[in-house]
Amino acid sequence: MKPVRRLPLPLRRGARVGVFAPAGPVAIPRLRRGVERLEAEGFRVVEAANVRSRDGYLAGDDEARLAGLEELLDAGVEALLASRGGFGSARLLGRLPWERLTSWGGWLVGFSDLTALHAGMAACTQLATLHGPMVATLTRHEGSTRRLFQWLRGEAPEMLFRLTSAQVVRDGVARGVAVGGNLSVLTSLIGSRFEPDWDGVVLFLEDVGEPLYRLDRMLTQLRLASRLGRIVALVGGRFVGCGRGERRFRERWRALLAEAAPPSAVVVEGLPFGHGTVNTPFPLGIQVEVDTRRRWVRLGG
Amino acid sequence: MKPVRRLPLPLRRGARVGVFAPAGPVAIPRLRRGVERLEAEGFRVVEAANVRSRDGYLAGDDEARLAGLEELLDAGVEALLASRGGFGSARLLGRLPWERLTSWGGWLVGFSDLTALHAGMAACTQLATLHGPMVATLTRHEGSTRRLFQWLRGEAPEMLFRLTSAQVVRDGVARGVAVGGNLSVLTSLIGSRFEPDWDGVVLFLEDVGEPLYRLDRMLTQLRLASRLGRIVALVGGRFVGCGRGERRFRERWRALLAEAAPPSAVVVEGLPFGHGTVNTPFPLGIQVEVDTRRRWVRLGG
Repeated sequence: MKPVRRLPLPLRRGARVGVFAPAGPVAIPRLRRGVERLEAEGFRVVEAANVRSRDGYLAGDDEARLAGLEELLDAGVEALLASRGGFGSARLLGRLPWERLTSWGGWLVGFSDLTALHAGMAACTQLATLHGPMVATLTRHEGSTRRLFQWLRGEAPEMLFRLTSAQVVRDGVARGVAVGGNLSVLTSLIGSRFEPDWDGVVLFLEDVGEPLYRLDRMLTQLRLASRLGRIVALVGGRFVGCGRGERRFRERWRALLAEAAPPSAVVVEGLPFGHGTVNTPFPLGIQVEVDTRRRWVRLGG
Repeated sequence: MKPVRRLPLPLRRGARVGVFAPAGPVAIPRLRRGVERLEAEGFRVVEAANVRSRDGYLAGDDEARLAGLEELLDAGVEALLASRGGFGSARLLGRLPWERLTSWGGWLVGFSDLTALHAGMAACTQLATLHGPMVATLTRHEGSTRRLFQWLRGEAPEMLFRLTSAQVVRDGVARGVAVGGNLSVLTSLIGSRFEPDWDGVVLFLEDVGEPLYRLDRMLTQLRLASRLGRIVALVGGRFVGCGRGERRFRERWRALLAEAAPPSAVVVEGLPFGHGTVNTPFPLGIQVEVDTRRRWVRLGG
């Protein structure tokens, strides 16, 4: 599949937006607040039948979670917003209707466990996808949510992130296709046909609740498997709850990132995306530029 | 590398046994008790210089941990016993002296994080290795420790495990080379040249502190990456602290194991090896037989 993909068409007021649940069960009050926010924005919300299901750590079994997605496509939604993450998306990868999703051509939105679906869309369709808030987190940070709606309407600015000097680990300018998401989920795709094409990409990474030794283990896997040798930039987001009990977490984490990236790659970290309060949306599958002199990560370049 | 490998030569009384630390730092009192136990057994214990080091979650930096191992080979040890696990072995895989280890020909003993070195020895040497207690856990369960010493002296029985009917998930008889260890560590080797050769093997798995959804994620990775399609048996050990907050953990876990193994594979679980109190040692790289009718896992077959 070509790494550079196309953005879906902008949504108009009144567009149908589907809420699906490919992973874990969602807390109903948070779901409700998120749905209200979508409706307040003028979207017509369609909820998949399994969105309120709970089967252990899954929002229904594989069949129910798959059927939920198909049902939303049947209903003519123009965007698929995940209710929440957790775990479960990867279990569906081998059975998703990739051809139908390609001809559908809408927006897929989520992060964390949804990284598996972002990777699946990259491997099996020509569609760019949107790394950003899920329905259950739509009321967490208004700026992130507004930016999400800008993306869906085709009104987002080309500037994705402004960099501070404290966020720069290794200077430079790099241009490549944006790939990535959750580090744990990305490493769990290694060896499968849904694993990203790593060559020449700008790799975005975030995670939650992983102690430093586990982050090290994951980056070590990427190194031992020679996956990062040709990335052009490594862009670290928020690693929430990852430094517990670790002295000098930030310093050690930056050293691990610098070690994982090839010497030619630009490395920045601490950007406001992922599991923190602020979760600035950005597209995956589109060309982006990281420039530490101009202090930005933006589209194009 | 040939999957069936040779067992090292038996140790005699007075043999030099090296304690090395390729991974995390050890609690000194536990180390001391383990060393005393080794000495009481008649071994001459040689401690690597970095065994008492602590650098965050590592027992010294990569150079110190590597040098510790080389130093023990210089000292003429006939066995390498890991002080403890944690994380760090995988960081050394690309730099270990495999040719020297092959001609050395001694015993490598450990579990958990040491799974990375077991896999490295399988990929890069002709030596079988021993999955079993580490120095810091030598006083945890006397039976396991006695069995470890039997192995080192070439006096271990061919019977590795007796099975109860409650431990059988899928009946059958299977013979293959024993491979495996810690599930988290094994999946973290996927894509690297140290990944096991999975074909025709009896795969032993254990883990600690991984909630069910993570175990699912790891088995899902093995499935998506088509790694388990030709294993002949799946042998689950102890999964300590993995069921917290999960209703019907055992039932769900057995279902995940049955799903991960090919329909032709024998599946048993709950055997006393890994992070539990009892950690019965067994060799990796040697032909074993799983027979649910005769209710055993034993050497040969």
